[in-house]
Amino acid sequence: MAMEGLWLFSVALSAAGAIGFICIILVLRWVLYFRKGLAWDGGAAEFNWHPVLIVTGFIFLQGIAIIVYRLPWTWQCSKKMMKFIHAALNLVAFIFAVISMVAVFDFHNAANIPNMYSLHSWLGLTAVILYCLQLVLGVGIYLIPATPVSWRAAFMPLHVYSGLLLFTSVIAVALMGITEKLIFALDNPKYKDSPPEAILVNALGVLLVLFGALILWIATRASWKRPKDQILHTLHSNGGGEDNIKVDSASSQLSDGADAEAFYTGQRNS
Amino acid sequence: MAMEGLWLFSVALSAAGAIGFICIILVLRWVLYFRKGLAWDGGAAEFNWHPVLIVTGFIFLQGIAIIVYRLPWTWQCSKKMMKFIHAALNLVAFIFAVISMVAVFDFHNAANIPNMYSLHSWLGLTAVILYCLQLVLGVGIYLIPATPVSWRAAFMPLHVYSGLLLFTSVIAVALMGITEKLIFALDNPKYKDSPPEAILVNALGVLLVLFGALILWIATRASWKRPKDQILHTLHSNGGGEDNIKVDSASSQLSDGADAEAFYTGQRNS
Repeated sequence: MAMEGLWLFSVALSAAGAIGFICIILVLRWVLYFRKGLAWDGGAAEFNWHPVLIVTGFIFLQGIAIIVYRLPWTWQCSKKMMKFIHAALNLVAFIFAVISMVAVFDFHNAANIPNMYSLHSWLGLTAVILYCLQLVLGVGIYLIPATPVSWRAAFMPLHVYSGLLLFTSVIAVALMGITEKLIFALDNPKYKDSPPEAILVNALGVLLVLFGALILWIATRASWKRPKDQILHTLHSNGGGEDNIKVDSASSQLSDGADAEAFYTGQRNS
Repeated sequence: MAMEGLWLFSVALSAAGAIGFICIILVLRWVLYFRKGLAWDGGAAEFNWHPVLIVTGFIFLQGIAIIVYRLPWTWQCSKKMMKFIHAALNLVAFIFAVISMVAVFDFHNAANIPNMYSLHSWLGLTAVILYCLQLVLGVGIYLIPATPVSWRAAFMPLHVYSGLLLFTSVIAVALMGITEKLIFALDNPKYKDSPPEAILVNALGVLLVLFGALILWIATRASWKRPKDQILHTLHSNGGGEDNIKVDSASSQLSDGADAEAFYTGQRNS
């Protein structure tokens, strides 16, 4: 089934993918070249897992998880399978976030730095806890067959809003983390002297914002929504007569409230 | 005309108003009690205008400007008047942002601190420039009568998306600013020792996120959208027969693409 505005979608998706990939390269360049690499020894190299895992998992993978329903070449797959992929990507992102937090606590404890004093830490821990809640509720409501359809539909607006808000918040928290780390870590020259490391990591921050903006754009265009499964089925089996689409679309709403995954999406002026 | 879910809307609006008001109190408490008050002398008291003007103008006023079309007691007012109020609030927010930036540059120059080295400054200046562009394009497209209706409709998705993204970005930049300022300004005790000032300003940051989350929730509920003017007119003059609504709704789209201001809003599963 062809997607409306496929060319623009492809551009946006390619840009998001490329920028996300560059972010991962930049964060690796940061810790491997400018900082003390990666290790699990309670020192600075253990801390470095924090930005690496947040960028690769909690930002990049979460972003991909958000738009996974939008990819037109997956519209042949069952909705159930796509839900599992969406949940699995979010689960991996969550695991990355938890390990990245353990790395910071280990580093702080070894260096006698207090935990949880900064706004970055307050908002970051809150985001991880709410993300866990979102995962548990999402699995309970959309993947357990016994959950009533009415609950799925009723919860969908909140699920989509929370998902996009959490994704946005995680990027904001990462920007605060970058700010903190550059101020603390750069000494001679300092952050204010704009050494190459500062420029590289500032650029990483700008690209994280661009990645987030593209994911939010892709996720909120109504014309890029995955068609309802019943419409796909109708089109494939009946040739897609308009009356059939209407009937099947209505029955789809009754049979699976989870099809409303795009509650938060933009809509044309109609 | 009654709003669907008016009770929940009232709760969300009251919460946003109260939290926004508390944010303004907290930022004033911060600069007046913990920092050197407010003045325009090139020193720390001039810098203090920066957080005060950003919180009151670039965050609180911008937030109100975003949801001004949602207030049901304004639905009796003409759309044109509401557009002027929306534009005026955004203009005041922009002026506050510009003055707040001048305060920082003055302070930096007087203290020989380099300008524009931090990620906070890069993203903050970008947000102000894009906000200016959004204002100019918004006025040109939606307030100048000569602009073709087709342009208004075509630009609306981008206008709404950009508006919400800029609002979100400004809050993220403010959180980075809070982080920077607390690290630089707190010395004995330091930020990591969690003195009362750190707790107060961290709480301000948390409340700014809550304010933003509430504004985004209010702005993206389809059921809280302002009805099209022609529907209001029809309901008032004809008693609101269904056929009339349909006809007038269609003519509304043709006559004023700007009615699509809520492109980005959430939609029910339909």
